[in-house]
Amino acid sequence: MKKNLKSARFIVAIDLGGTNIKVALFSLGFKMRDRLSCPTPVLHGRQAVIVAVLEMVAGLLSRRKISAGSISAAGIGVPGPVDFDRQVVHFLPNIPGWRNVPLSSVFTSACGIPCVVDNDAKMMALAEYTLGAAKGSRNAVCLTLGTGVGAGLIIEGKLYRGADNAAGEIGHLPLNENGPACPCGGKACLERYAGNGALLKEARAALGASITLEKASALAAGGNRKALRFWRTASTHIGIALAGLSNVLNPDVIVVGGGVSSAGRPLFDGLKENLLRRAMPVQGRRVKVVRAALGSDAGLIGAALAAAGRTRA
Amino acid sequence: MKKNLKSARFIVAIDLGGTNIKVALFSLGFKMRDRLSCPTPVLHGRQAVIVAVLEMVAGLLSRRKISAGSISAAGIGVPGPVDFDRQVVHFLPNIPGWRNVPLSSVFTSACGIPCVVDNDAKMMALAEYTLGAAKGSRNAVCLTLGTGVGAGLIIEGKLYRGADNAAGEIGHLPLNENGPACPCGGKACLERYAGNGALLKEARAALGASITLEKASALAAGGNRKALRFWRTASTHIGIALAGLSNVLNPDVIVVGGGVSSAGRPLFDGLKENLLRRAMPVQGRRVKVVRAALGSDAGLIGAALAAAGRTRA
Repeated sequence: MKKNLKSARFIVAIDLGGTNIKVALFSLGFKMRDRLSCPTPVLHGRQAVIVAVLEMVAGLLSRRKISAGSISAAGIGVPGPVDFDRQVVHFLPNIPGWRNVPLSSVFTSACGIPCVVDNDAKMMALAEYTLGAAKGSRNAVCLTLGTGVGAGLIIEGKLYRGADNAAGEIGHLPLNENGPACPCGGKACLERYAGNGALLKEARAALGASITLEKASALAAGGNRKALRFWRTASTHIGIALAGLSNVLNPDVIVVGGGVSSAGRPLFDGLKENLLRRAMPVQGRRVKVVRAALGSDAGLIGAALAAAGRTRA
Repeated sequence: MKKNLKSARFIVAIDLGGTNIKVALFSLGFKMRDRLSCPTPVLHGRQAVIVAVLEMVAGLLSRRKISAGSISAAGIGVPGPVDFDRQVVHFLPNIPGWRNVPLSSVFTSACGIPCVVDNDAKMMALAEYTLGAAKGSRNAVCLTLGTGVGAGLIIEGKLYRGADNAAGEIGHLPLNENGPACPCGGKACLERYAGNGALLKEARAALGASITLEKASALAAGGNRKALRFWRTASTHIGIALAGLSNVLNPDVIVVGGGVSSAGRPLFDGLKENLLRRAMPVQGRRVKVVRAALGSDAGLIGAALAAAGRTRA
């Protein structure tokens, strides 16, 4: 559907997560004008999730008294692999019922808004590179530490996709030749040590059953030795993977985002120390490790940027 | 020194290795017209190595009755890190006495031929991508298995250098969190398992003190169980690193060259098996593992290509 670009004044951004669906309205200058959030109806099937997304978009337009004709495009970030050329979601590891879903065309047919779908880690990288902590660097690794461990790679100032839009799966860099089996088919993948689930299990063993990662950060910030030791182990696992990655990619910067990154210094000090200790001298001295600047909005901002790119393309 | 490009008919390519110096004369269409080789005077200092290179170039021009004015440019590949922008050799791990050598300007001052210097693994990747086994692919890893384990990365059809021209150090991807210390400062780097020295040590332990890697390949080809087991272990080490790399870079092809690659099937079968078993399904199914097509001439061909790029620039 061709849009009259003169009348287009907004972009819709959708962050379809395993826990929440977030929908936001952006100006064409990427300022967020309004937003909605609701729990993802994970257990009610694909249709329920798609209907929820469409209702949220309609709700947002209605309450701002905006017609679909005022929207230049929508961007949707999803937590799983996407065939970008065909605009098909392969599957979503944490949302059952999604397999080979042509989400762009489903969305556009339903509401008349042109749409671009991509993997959420790639959209977050796009956001941090364009407007956040990787701004101004040519080669950046934008790491997301959450339920999954993933990354978007910026190579020579451009989001790098690889042959199947599957580049950036840092969570599946093996940390050891032998170790825990990973659902991806590999063994001893970084995600088995540093994904939210693995970290929480370790934190509970060290700090008690009622611990959360937020509490473990607070304890470490207060000098609790067990908590500090827990974060040191976690940052060693992640730091070794980042050292190997730095040797291979020689990036300017590694941006660390996702829920786990809110651990702050106990995590970041360990990452930097491990990088300096384990990476090759030239690569280790070069790379800065910084916290993501856009926080939990990175996914929405990236989706808005991707939507705008699609409009220009 | 500006060249009259009308009179330029040849390119000089130099492969400055830890064992031999090779010098060749190429046509502007990258056909090799003549070549010379001599042992690298490793123990006689930097000056001796540079003098040997200059004498070989002069000798080649003299025996072909060609003036320096007929040479459009020279390319020199060196086995170590190079500051490409400043054209300075940082150091050469296997040739003592090289530290911050502005090799391009030394060469050009001495013989009047414009020159480009780069890391040899990058030049080999350029050769395999332009004229060899990675031709036609957009994203390729060109691995060299020799004394060192390194790679040149082709990303979106272009040699990828990273922030310091230091990208591609696959030999320093850690295989384990703990393991043998590596001179690079890391631990358990792939090179500690799969560099020539490490492989030879393992082969000797398994197959006797007089074994060479060539003999170990021949034994494996003949069905010798110990030799087959030796290659299976070697290809498992390398294959796990390649699986991680495939998950991160999602390349079309991994080209394997360098002396060790002449092991042939016992090595390549193991690499492919490990990639399929350990890499993520999409990335593992995508990536082809192929033997380098240009053999031991890849370094010279890459140097000629780099020289031509420099001429155009």
